[in-house]
Amino acid sequence: MTTAASSAFGATPEPDPTHWVLTLSCPDRPGIVHAVSGLLAEHGGNITESQQYGDPETDRFFMRVQVRTAADEAVLKDAIGDLAARFDMTWTLDVVGRPVRTLVLVSKAAHCLNDLLFRQRSEGLEIDVVGVVGNHTDLATLAAFYGKPFHHIPVTKETKPDAEAALLALVDELNVELVVLARYMQVLSDDLCRRLEGRIINIHHSFLPSFKGAKPYHQAHERGVKLIGATSHYVTADLDEGPIIEQDVERVDHSRSTEELVALGQDVERRVLARAVRWHSEHRVLLNGHRTVIFR
Amino acid sequence: MTTAASSAFGATPEPDPTHWVLTLSCPDRPGIVHAVSGLLAEHGGNITESQQYGDPETDRFFMRVQVRTAADEAVLKDAIGDLAARFDMTWTLDVVGRPVRTLVLVSKAAHCLNDLLFRQRSEGLEIDVVGVVGNHTDLATLAAFYGKPFHHIPVTKETKPDAEAALLALVDELNVELVVLARYMQVLSDDLCRRLEGRIINIHHSFLPSFKGAKPYHQAHERGVKLIGATSHYVTADLDEGPIIEQDVERVDHSRSTEELVALGQDVERRVLARAVRWHSEHRVLLNGHRTVIFR
Amino acid sequence: MTTAASSAFGATPEPDPTHWVLTLSCPDRPGIVHAVSGLLAEHGGNITESQQYGDPETDRFFMRVQVRTAADEAVLKDAIGDLAARFDMTWTLDVVGRPVRTLVLVSKAAHCLNDLLFRQRSEGLEIDVVGVVGNHTDLATLAAFYGKPFHHIPVTKETKPDAEAALLALVDELNVELVVLARYMQVLSDDLCRRLEGRIINIHHSFLPSFKGAKPYHQAHERGVKLIGATSHYVTADLDEGPIIEQDVERVDHSRSTEELVALGQDVERRVLARAVRWHSEHRVLLNGHRTVIFR
Amino acid sequence: MTTAASSAFGATPEPDPTHWVLTLSCPDRPGIVHAVSGLLAEHGGNITESQQYGDPETDRFFMRVQVRTAADEAVLKDAIGDLAARFDMTWTLDVVGRPVRTLVLVSKAAHCLNDLLFRQRSEGLEIDVVGVVGNHTDLATLAAFYGKPFHHIPVTKETKPDAEAALLALVDELNVELVVLARYMQVLSDDLCRRLEGRIINIHHSFLPSFKGAKPYHQAHERGVKLIGATSHYVTADLDEGPIIEQDVERVDHSRSTEELVALGQDVERRVLARAVRWHSEHRVLLNGHRTVIFR
Repeated sequence: MTTAASSAFGATPEPDPTHWVLTLSCPDRPGIVHAVSGLLAEHGGNITESQQYGDPETDRFFMRVQVRTAADEAVLKDAIGDLAARFDMTWTLDVVGRPVRTLVLVSKAAHCLNDLLFRQRSEGLEIDVVGVVGNHTDLATLAAFYGKPFHHIPVTKETKPDAEAALLALVDELNVELVVLARYMQVLSDDLCRRLEGRIINIHHSFLPSFKGAKPYHQAHERGVKLIGATSHYVTADLDEGPIIEQDVERVDHSRSTEELVALGQDVERRVLARAVRWHSEHRVLLNGHRTVIFR
Repeated sequence: MTTAASSAFGATPEPDPTHWVLTLSCPDRPGIVHAVSGLLAEHGGNITESQQYGDPETDRFFMRVQVRTAADEAVLKDAIGDLAARFDMTWTLDVVGRPVRTLVLVSKAAHCLNDLLFRQRSEGLEIDVVGVVGNHTDLATLAAFYGKPFHHIPVTKETKPDAEAALLALVDELNVELVVLARYMQVLSDDLCRRLEGRIINIHHSFLPSFKGAKPYHQAHERGVKLIGATSHYVTADLDEGPIIEQDVERVDHSRSTEELVALGQDVERRVLARAVRWHSEHRVLLNGHRTVIFR
Repeated sequence: MTTAASSAFGATPEPDPTHWVLTLSCPDRPGIVHAVSGLLAEHGGNITESQQYGDPETDRFFMRVQVRTAADEAVLKDAIGDLAARFDMTWTLDVVGRPVRTLVLVSKAAHCLNDLLFRQRSEGLEIDVVGVVGNHTDLATLAAFYGKPFHHIPVTKETKPDAEAALLALVDELNVELVVLARYMQVLSDDLCRRLEGRIINIHHSFLPSFKGAKPYHQAHERGVKLIGATSHYVTADLDEGPIIEQDVERVDHSRSTEELVALGQDVERRVLARAVRWHSEHRVLLNGHRTVIFR
Repeated sequence: MTTAASSAFGATPEPDPTHWVLTLSCPDRPGIVHAVSGLLAEHGGNITESQQYGDPETDRFFMRVQVRTAADEAVLKDAIGDLAARFDMTWTLDVVGRPVRTLVLVSKAAHCLNDLLFRQRSEGLEIDVVGVVGNHTDLATLAAFYGKPFHHIPVTKETKPDAEAALLALVDELNVELVVLARYMQVLSDDLCRRLEGRIINIHHSFLPSFKGAKPYHQAHERGVKLIGATSHYVTADLDEGPIIEQDVERVDHSRSTEELVALGQDVERRVLARAVRWHSEHRVLLNGHRTVIFR
């Protein structure tokens, strides 16, 4: 499909099918790096990027490797599976740069959606936005400009269970790998959070754990803070308590009204959300209990 | 005109015609503040924001005042004109929030134009983009999405004088108050720079005075810097030497290729350009020789 | 007294007795700036720096003016007193650069004390450290190096009232204008907080309101935040809730242990505390309820 | 020796002799990581930290590994030597946390020396300052407070060769591994630069390559920049052109005089220098031509 936006600005290059990204985590013990690098060497792999981290507190080991190899995918996966069994590893294998199928949920605020769509189109953000869901229709035109199907799923107290069912149906139908709450102003049910665990990212408009809950800029103004911030995190049933992926702040002063904090904060919000989505899509975020390991 | 974007996201409120912003600069001497505040008090003015700065080196005084008054515009201007004559002042008077008629010049890179148009639409950037000029047509669709007339003025070595004439004709015809070079990849003639002096803003993709001229990210990569930056400045005949309005930087490390620096830099560029345009449009930038005074 | 440190590095210039700094706050209404600038003009004053702010929410007006005048101090104060009565102003008048008599309270951590003493000696921090109080003796040598009297006032649960009485006696005896808690690990009684209200500054080792109370770096590590911070604030009876003067942050990642957060945080803590002390000593901090107005 | 400072604040823990840091660089080719991890595994090593980087432009590979092993040092070095020959590696092996024997060169400005000495004493900066050299005597007292021998080596145009000879003699005599120019206001001869190549670090008080040479803050003020910065780099015969280790900036505005820029810059300078010295001492800086790879 040729859309307004796709004809306007640059296209993303096709991913190279012989360039792989492997992530893994397991109980720490000697020999993991040697075993992994050995396996990759056996399959003709040339490592292009590699990072690891051993957490001395949890005694868990985390690793992310990018490797070029012409080896067959099934063969590679079998070999990794065997190794994983031996070391009790959790692992993923993907082609570097394969766009992650992403569903973006919005309400009325446009800045995060606009930013994600622009970056995906022009700045190599490796996601494929397979749809935009709004509980309002305000952003349908923006989605259309970028050629993205817009789904209006209104939510009221009464219809919430139905709305979430519709959302889940969409996630299944579109083979959605990642859900992004781009200033979506609805609290999800515990059940939905659990079903999407590890693949749903939210942007909270404060520097968590400061100012949890509603109206954080009002709270920030009332408290007289000198920096405002934003936090992107995985969503869990525990509101605003999910594993933090990224945070950033912006300096403000006494002269800023709550409305101005809101406006200034939009810049931080979209930056922080875009980084989280980028790192997630590049398999740079590994879960370490309720914290994250970020291999940038 | 109803356009795709205008129907999509929030509208800017109408400016209040009794809320004024006065800027002035003059040789420093005792009594200026008293005289200005006296004049405003005489006309029933209530000061809502005021900043001043006396430069001990140049002995010049700078002031920006926002004032609410129901006084007649002509009467107010006459009174200020009299005072200005007495103190040898350069001054401007405008309604707070009146959108500045702006022409944006682009080539192929979309990030700065996209950012300005989005902010103007949704984040209270007080400009009225009366047109977009491209020496290529790549960004015509983006301009159209926001309902902005796009003018294709191609430039070659031979046609440059004609192209600049066409540009100046457009500036006149559209009553353009501000020209923004949003990653416009053409060097303007000295003559054009002089004609638009003080009302043309450029974004340079380096932390000036580092890496003047072409391909700054290549230079930055070659030098192995640990921060990359961007600089917005008024354009003068002296290439990359005009008065600096704003600068910012982003941390990078050894692993970043030149291409990645370019991509990371786009975030800084649009932020730095947007701030400069915002401050200019709000009459917060005063010229002090080849430097600027910024009343934020 | 010549001490080790005083002979080692630069001396501060004597303040100019004809250069004044006036701060004031009052209910907002038209004519304040005009009245103040008029008063100063009548007394031959030349304004060298001036800032004001009207808070639209509390309808209070704040102003800080630096002015050169040869007028007699008593005459000036009388005139200001009259004006203040008319406008219901709270005000202060001081000589620019007069060192504020400061008592620093410490426990065992040296970084904040070392920083304040060094800046006071070499970097124009306008305080006169008239004494250092420690509930431990670890930092006596550091105080001695800078020629500062060290007072050991140990604190136990039983002796706390006596210790606070001794502290207050010292404040009186030394004409202390400002008390700085430079990582002083004791909670002050409500009564002491009230007696020193507006002239006692603390550094809290987190980005408030995140991680109030004890062991903020442990909390930060446990929560997995991506930035750590520090907050300087006036001390009130409400623990960690006093008016915030300054905050700053530092980026950290998953690989940092709690101990490393503590070490990295020391840099932020001393920077944030030094700024607060500097701005307070230069009369740049005005109280606006439980928030601050900072005229930098 | 017990000195004033050593009795005042915390002591550094002894390094663990079975905890090693290995750095290496070599032409990139498959199998390096596997070979290194294999060698370490054979010697009973458990990797605690590991980072690598392959530069696609220079085709060089860089690696830093921390490993715990009870293996004998000579045996380990022999094995690494063999491997290094096979892969054409440049390599270093050291005990983690072994203090690097450091000579600090100063003139009159105290802030960098004070910071290094304080951090070495209290914040785990892994250097052993074996002496301080000044071309003036101003900082002798500060060195003495920290128990560091001070050597006065004055420099005039005529005595410069002798002074440099005295300096080199001191470097030899004290087994100096690292020379730090902590705002040392003398340009070193090309010959001296070459002799100390790779083990001499300077702090330049600008954001290089902006404002090379003398009086960078004057240049910065004159140009009207909105951020000032500092750069730590290895010293080469090419003045201010050596490989950059770290840079940082601080926001300033139009109201700052050159003197204020100097004062504000001191904070950035000491921070940037301290980071460079820390990373160098922890073997986190590898040379990649005239650029650096930093494994933080």
